[in-house]
Amino acid sequence: MRVRVSPSAPNMQLRTTSQLATPAVLVDLDALNRNLRTMSQRHPGAKLRPHTKAHKCTQLAELQMHYGHKTFTCATPREVIGMAAATVGEDLLLANEVVDYDRLTALAKVSENLRVTIAVDSEFTINAAERAGLRDVLIDVNVGLKRCGIAPELAGQLADFARKKKMTVRGVMGYEGHLMMVDGHDKRKQRVAESMQLLTRAAKDVGGEVISAGGTGTFDMHDDTEINELQAGSYALMDTHYAKLALPFEQSCFVLGTVISQSNAWCVIDVGLKSLGMDHGNPTINGYDVLFCSDEHTTLAPIKDASTEKISVGEKLRVIPAHIDPTMAMHDFAHIVRGDEIIDSWSIDLRGW
Amino acid sequence: MRVRVSPSAPNMQLRTTSQLATPAVLVDLDALNRNLRTMSQRHPGAKLRPHTKAHKCTQLAELQMHYGHKTFTCATPREVIGMAAATVGEDLLLANEVVDYDRLTALAKVSENLRVTIAVDSEFTINAAERAGLRDVLIDVNVGLKRCGIAPELAGQLADFARKKKMTVRGVMGYEGHLMMVDGHDKRKQRVAESMQLLTRAAKDVGGEVISAGGTGTFDMHDDTEINELQAGSYALMDTHYAKLALPFEQSCFVLGTVISQSNAWCVIDVGLKSLGMDHGNPTINGYDVLFCSDEHTTLAPIKDASTEKISVGEKLRVIPAHIDPTMAMHDFAHIVRGDEIIDSWSIDLRGW
Repeated sequence: MRVRVSPSAPNMQLRTTSQLATPAVLVDLDALNRNLRTMSQRHPGAKLRPHTKAHKCTQLAELQMHYGHKTFTCATPREVIGMAAATVGEDLLLANEVVDYDRLTALAKVSENLRVTIAVDSEFTINAAERAGLRDVLIDVNVGLKRCGIAPELAGQLADFARKKKMTVRGVMGYEGHLMMVDGHDKRKQRVAESMQLLTRAAKDVGGEVISAGGTGTFDMHDDTEINELQAGSYALMDTHYAKLALPFEQSCFVLGTVISQSNAWCVIDVGLKSLGMDHGNPTINGYDVLFCSDEHTTLAPIKDASTEKISVGEKLRVIPAHIDPTMAMHDFAHIVRGDEIIDSWSIDLRGW
Repeated sequence: MRVRVSPSAPNMQLRTTSQLATPAVLVDLDALNRNLRTMSQRHPGAKLRPHTKAHKCTQLAELQMHYGHKTFTCATPREVIGMAAATVGEDLLLANEVVDYDRLTALAKVSENLRVTIAVDSEFTINAAERAGLRDVLIDVNVGLKRCGIAPELAGQLADFARKKKMTVRGVMGYEGHLMMVDGHDKRKQRVAESMQLLTRAAKDVGGEVISAGGTGTFDMHDDTEINELQAGSYALMDTHYAKLALPFEQSCFVLGTVISQSNAWCVIDVGLKSLGMDHGNPTINGYDVLFCSDEHTTLAPIKDASTEKISVGEKLRVIPAHIDPTMAMHDFAHIVRGDEIIDSWSIDLRGW
């Protein structure tokens, strides 16, 4: 069987972004640090459980540890296993249901050396975790998003079922993902409060100390809720979707492209829909209108009233993704930059499942 | 520096799809063979230059060779280099503009052992190819799609420029991508004919023997055009977008998911927007309405008037992607199946750039 050759480490002799082969992910280190600082001041230490799914990069998670966070949220077994292999984090929550026996067994092995907790929302998922040898669970509660989570009124019973299996029920989690983009800060906050009442009710029935919820879009809406840890990820790198909410986090991640073709009316860069998460629509390029994306290309035209300088074939442009999580999941490396200087290159090593 | 560990080869003891960890790409071998046969009968041998960008899999390309095709189209340097490393194909066309010196040099090295031709549409791209040591070019002509390609009336001059650099100008290419989804077969055919007149005009000025164009959506519209090779890729695996055109190719590729959560009104599978190309919208699941996709999940509900059997946590479903090319680019392996039996697992080894 043929296996894809792992990409070789980037050429570390490269000093500036102008030398990079494209498409290439850039992360502005100073902006990233500002984002991490802002969030850690608001939610210090274990009050934040940073979500690795937004960046899939253990070196970025390590930087989050420097800001005082040792507990992390993961969305896939591979994220948990990769974090453990890199010895980043002391308490990893897989905030997702998993039923595959081999993957659960691999997680159980990891849990011999550090705390691994898995979300469960049914007897089936509890049985699967127990059979593989996992011991710590959170009851995943549906707080209004049509996705995973048991109905709040059934959460206590499910916790009892898990305890009968000799599992440790650490508490509850619930993700108010349906409210992240509710228009208007006050309205969003009100709806988050209502949603969290469902979680609080379940928490009382379930017991345990953890009440985990939230995300970047509701990071400042939990002062009056009962949750004691926030699961946020996108705040570190950001995207144009979350930027609509006017949060105190800045864009720190870009996909660098090279102009490969040009006509009188448009130019084409080598960043396309295979290097950008497209579920939130087209990316943004300052000074340009994005006409459309295809597999390997984005066609753009200078905005007429902007003072965009004429660009030529061979020059580079920064693209701002509409959705950061799937964008990161498409790339092998993130190049860490200050201005146009490349400081380091980090592997996006948690890709996959 | 940390580097992502290459995924280990899939467990080849697995015999049925019910045992697979998900999300996982499935390719129905019989349907794939029927698609390859249908296309090779219409465009035998060198009349088809199959596009690797649609599947990014050298073992699938090898199967295309068994149907008589030895010339291939690629969209990225890595696709060319990977095809050469796997010794699949004798004449590889990089139907895309590249200006990165290191990548062009790597292509030049490959061209010592097999024919590598690169698309150019400007003096800049010709100079870049020439400097790296590449010799064979096609003049990429704009035939109406707002993307790469020189204006038809300037193509001859550009060919002269390349010949002055001692390059071999093999002919022209032009991609009528803006016409793939034109509604109505006759209308589409008419517009393709008009578009190809631009290419034919350029071909006369450029010289050389190759006139390369087309795609899956226009595969049967070139009988009266002058093109002598068709660049089609999606026909092999297909997706719901191309299915709208009622082509004689069937869906042979699916993303397998596992039900991980269930409520009275919906269920959730572990196939999300990180495992599906989303630029053409939501995927399709027979018997279900897809409510929405998130990073790691798709929420779906049984169609009320369909005879969909009740599904339980732990069971598996096949998801039909809306766009095949970016979907394949997100996965490490394609599992080759006949019904639910796993026959082989092929590496999607041409991912990346």
